[in-house]
Amino acid sequence: MTTHSHLDAHHVDLGRLVTLIDGVFAVALTLLVLDLKLPTGAPGLAAALRQMLPGFLVYLIVFASIAGYWTQHHFAFQYISRGDSRLILLSLVNLLFVTLYPLMASIVGAHPLEPLAIVCLSSNSLLYCLSAWAVWSHAAARQDLLAGDAERRALQRLARIMLLVAACLALALPLAYLSVYLAYADLILCAPLAAWMGGRRRASRS
Amino acid sequence: MTTHSHLDAHHVDLGRLVTLIDGVFAVALTLLVLDLKLPTGAPGLAAALRQMLPGFLVYLIVFASIAGYWTQHHFAFQYISRGDSRLILLSLVNLLFVTLYPLMASIVGAHPLEPLAIVCLSSNSLLYCLSAWAVWSHAAARQDLLAGDAERRALQRLARIMLLVAACLALALPLAYLSVYLAYADLILCAPLAAWMGGRRRASRS
Amino acid sequence: MTTHSHLDAHHVDLGRLVTLIDGVFAVALTLLVLDLKLPTGAPGLAAALRQMLPGFLVYLIVFASIAGYWTQHHFAFQYISRGDSRLILLSLVNLLFVTLYPLMASIVGAHPLEPLAIVCLSSNSLLYCLSAWAVWSHAAARQDLLAGDAERRALQRLARIMLLVAACLALALPLAYLSVYLAYADLILCAPLAAWMGGRRRASRS
Amino acid sequence: MTTHSHLDAHHVDLGRLVTLIDGVFAVALTLLVLDLKLPTGAPGLAAALRQMLPGFLVYLIVFASIAGYWTQHHFAFQYISRGDSRLILLSLVNLLFVTLYPLMASIVGAHPLEPLAIVCLSSNSLLYCLSAWAVWSHAAARQDLLAGDAERRALQRLARIMLLVAACLALALPLAYLSVYLAYADLILCAPLAAWMGGRRRASRS
Repeated sequence: MTTHSHLDAHHVDLGRLVTLIDGVFAVALTLLVLDLKLPTGAPGLAAALRQMLPGFLVYLIVFASIAGYWTQHHFAFQYISRGDSRLILLSLVNLLFVTLYPLMASIVGAHPLEPLAIVCLSSNSLLYCLSAWAVWSHAAARQDLLAGDAERRALQRLARIMLLVAACLALALPLAYLSVYLAYADLILCAPLAAWMGGRRRASRS
Repeated sequence: MTTHSHLDAHHVDLGRLVTLIDGVFAVALTLLVLDLKLPTGAPGLAAALRQMLPGFLVYLIVFASIAGYWTQHHFAFQYISRGDSRLILLSLVNLLFVTLYPLMASIVGAHPLEPLAIVCLSSNSLLYCLSAWAVWSHAAARQDLLAGDAERRALQRLARIMLLVAACLALALPLAYLSVYLAYADLILCAPLAAWMGGRRRASRS
Repeated sequence: MTTHSHLDAHHVDLGRLVTLIDGVFAVALTLLVLDLKLPTGAPGLAAALRQMLPGFLVYLIVFASIAGYWTQHHFAFQYISRGDSRLILLSLVNLLFVTLYPLMASIVGAHPLEPLAIVCLSSNSLLYCLSAWAVWSHAAARQDLLAGDAERRALQRLARIMLLVAACLALALPLAYLSVYLAYADLILCAPLAAWMGGRRRASRS
Repeated sequence: MTTHSHLDAHHVDLGRLVTLIDGVFAVALTLLVLDLKLPTGAPGLAAALRQMLPGFLVYLIVFASIAGYWTQHHFAFQYISRGDSRLILLSLVNLLFVTLYPLMASIVGAHPLEPLAIVCLSSNSLLYCLSAWAVWSHAAARQDLLAGDAERRALQRLARIMLLVAACLALALPLAYLSVYLAYADLILCAPLAAWMGGRRRASRS
């Protein structure tokens, strides 16, 4: 499958790790929908669909978050040439928070106006971002995992963006107790902000 | 995993995007079946299977739609050599409508003769086609994402086919209120039409 | 992702088709387990586990079937170098019967001693084998999809094995009404028979 | 997809097997979360989340186990260059125990303090390790599947580690009847032990 002629005792090929990660992202994106179910007690289909609306909006927010984080992951891993044991370990911790999204969507979908539910969702995103920051930073700190110095600087920029998104997400924790709508606005703006900054920084590299 | 020696600041490798897309299609195709459940109140297995028949036919229609759209996607992406940030963004929007199919199948399976249920399913297919058209058109408009001019023309043809399928699907919206059976016929014919036209156009290129 | 320099208007790269197929097989293998649930009315965990035993045996049979068919698929596709539109179409029909396995396992798990349930499972396997035969035969009949004549003969052998397995599975249909245990024995023996014959034939090629 | 110019009658390409395995691992990791559901009878969200805590801890333990075994699998398969029919068969048996993890997590999540539940989970991990040992040992015993002698010794070391982890897991079976907490401690320590030893042995090879 892979050319491991250049593999030494400390480095591992990244192909399978990326396949596992993309598989987990793909399953998480698709499992979200299992939480959207037609309510059985509604007087008709139109009423049932109306009752599903809050859950559907939560679905869109969580889908956009996962999709945005996948995009960031894709940008970052383009700069990493090789892996080591710690990169795998940190990536698996990172994946844990991806697999928790369907649960978070189900908690928020069942209690859309409860501050504690939004705190659950935001904390999961926050932990995702911090673990992603740990992956990018580890790779940036190890010259032997990268092709060159430009890659190191690009990864460091993406790691800083992850910290910035984490800070935005941390803001949603107190906001949820002030106004759930402000907290939602904060959550909704975080993912496109991250994607846009990731894109802009890439462009400015040339 | 990939040879990113030729990667500059504006372009991204398509390998991981395609892996994510194929993963989402594979999971969506397989999750559909979770909605087919033996009814518990039936007097016997034969009666229970008979009660499942409408849901099973919906399963076949939705499976054929997803399979047909995957085939179109496969044809189109053979002409695209590189990606950029906007291609990823549009593709992720495109994926949103793939992940919604299990929900649509469950709505139609629960209310197979209700016009509103067919409107939900058709609208989702319609939005899938329009977002696919946006992906193909974006790639066709950017010379730097394609290998040459023949690829551009081929993509433009596939994009036009997507618009044609979208028009057929839009027809199902009023049809559903006239006769649900006519609307189903329209839905059933759309996917093979798209696949056949995609195949014919390809053949006529040689 | 792929080098499509050699792609002409009639041929398609098989990489993505195989990714989709492996994805569907992987999800189907893993979804089976969702049907195994601890019964809630049992007086204790030991009793609950004992009540799950028939469903668990069905799980093992269906897992072995899917795993056996995947092995056959892997053997067959090693001989196919390129695809065309019809190969994709036939493969997608083939996949339909893979995605139906979790439903069949759930029907048989709920009614393990009912002949009609075994008929459902056997018919699904039978249709899988016939559609796999159609895929292998189509490829064997098209010189342009294969690397050479040895590949054609190998595929023809594998296609014949699929017909033989289909005949064994057809036997389970009447057997189910004579004795469900004989029908199960027939189902259990089919998959290893197929795998063993696939392996033996391969060996005899050298 | 693959260069099978060097394929003879006895060997198979490992690419698709690894794709299937990574797919099953990815789906198993993500399906675990479906067992975590908000309890409906709780007086409020905070109380409901507190009721979920034992299930959540079980989730973390099982996630860490699957992630740890995937890491071991990744290390081992870097040393295997080719496959044969038996390697595929043993790998599919190995996968069976991966697909059973969501069931085991659901049994332990429903009965976290019942020794029998812990015995189910430990037995599944034990059988996973023994089947993984069988895969690594088979490959190590066949020179034609490996690139050289260093790979054979590395695989033999990883196979021995699998036996050691199996012994640790076997310890959890009697421990569960003495104290469930000791049994959990044993289960929690096994996965990182395996990962750490896998990493250390790799390092000591250079």
